[in-house]
Amino acid sequence: MSKTVFFHAGCPVCVSAEQMIADALKQPVEKVHLGVAAHRVAEAESLGVKSVPALVIDGHVFHINHGADLSALK
Amino acid sequence: MSKTVFFHAGCPVCVSAEQMIADALKQPVEKVHLGVAAHRVAEAESLGVKSVPALVIDGHVFHINHGADLSALK
Repeated sequence: MSKTVFFHAGCPVCVSAEQMIADALKQPVEKVHLGVAAHRVAEAESLGVKSVPALVIDGHVFHINHGADLSALK
Repeated sequence: MSKTVFFHAGCPVCVSAEQMIADALKQPVEKVHLGVAAHRVAEAESLGVKSVPALVIDGHVFHINHGADLSALK
């Protein structure tokens, strides 16, 4: 079962862009706002996420544009 | 009608990653290898593409990871 997660930090422009990507994908996307769900920063880091917004499809990380480094969210 | 274009420069890792994204999208994706279709670099530039690989959905540019600056393809 494919798992898709979108990590972001809540900036309005990024959320809008991310929504467009999420809508374009076939499978459902879990959206994780790391500014709110700070306990999931470690999870994002362990998946290889270096910056947000980032899309993770089955463990493969795609950094999309560049909002903020993950380190800024710790 | 939604139009989706993936601009890339042919590196094997990027093509593999891009294939995963293209497969995950609902709509068909036109793939443009700017190393081969050099005449389309200007088109990519006019859409706002700064680096490849980049996904353009209805005129919105998403730079995915970072392979090469567009200027390196001119």
